[in-house]
Amino acid sequence: MAKTDYYDDPTAPAPNSLVVAVAVMVLDDYGQVLLIQRSDNGLWALPGGGQELGETVRQAGVRETYEETGLEVEVTGIVGIYSDPRHVIAYDDGEVRQEYSVCLRARATGGELATSDESRRVCWIDPGEVDQLSMHPSMRRRVQHGLANQAPYLD
Amino acid sequence: MAKTDYYDDPTAPAPNSLVVAVAVMVLDDYGQVLLIQRSDNGLWALPGGGQELGETVRQAGVRETYEETGLEVEVTGIVGIYSDPRHVIAYDDGEVRQEYSVCLRARATGGELATSDESRRVCWIDPGEVDQLSMHPSMRRRVQHGLANQAPYLD
Repeated sequence: MAKTDYYDDPTAPAPNSLVVAVAVMVLDDYGQVLLIQRSDNGLWALPGGGQELGETVRQAGVRETYEETGLEVEVTGIVGIYSDPRHVIAYDDGEVRQEYSVCLRARATGGELATSDESRRVCWIDPGEVDQLSMHPSMRRRVQHGLANQAPYLD
Repeated sequence: MAKTDYYDDPTAPAPNSLVVAVAVMVLDDYGQVLLIQRSDNGLWALPGGGQELGETVRQAGVRETYEETGLEVEVTGIVGIYSDPRHVIAYDDGEVRQEYSVCLRARATGGELATSDESRRVCWIDPGEVDQLSMHPSMRRRVQHGLANQAPYLD
């Protein structure tokens, strides 16, 4: 389905839905961050996706990370809660979705790196190299917050 | 609308919706917690309610606290994120809602205690007296987590 992403754009339509999602910041022992290159738009991102009915926030984070990266993780904390009405995504069926994403912190406990339908590349990235990757501004903020390792961010 | 609340009940129906809400833990300088007695069921609770489209999590917390208690607050942190599929609320129109509540920490910056349509009493309660108040188990957990002042809780 076609979608249009608006960020801090005065011409953006007003949101008419809000769907809960998770993003997961996995760091390894060397401080590298687990990133995927998305299949749909080629941008780099933290693994994540919609929380399904019947699962907890933690379960959503573990499931999405496994599906998109092949790694099994344990959730250890919260990077932040991102729900900024200036960030909306308009779908061609009329839905205008306000962002609502909980960014979790996690550590790998098993599994092996593997791509998926949603992730054409899966890599451990050195923090100094993150700035060179193409990334949505809202995703870049989460990665920066996660690397800064401060109290949870809250919109 | 009639509703039935299920908590850890194997006979509960499966959830078919998830609505984002906030609850707000306001502490005063003496460590007392701001609680309301709900008009609809007489139970004591933290102020809070649904996050509306077009507002951030912080804005939802400030608005709901003001509406239900008369106090103006500044949000200072996160007590926890509560989204346990074992807690569902069934409405008589067929909706079965899975809990999704972000509990925020806040401090009062102005206003005066005032009741509302949703809050028949608004009180500062000493932590030692909380156990004697009738409270939903899911709400009591949030108050306990907020008083314990640990890292954010995550379901």
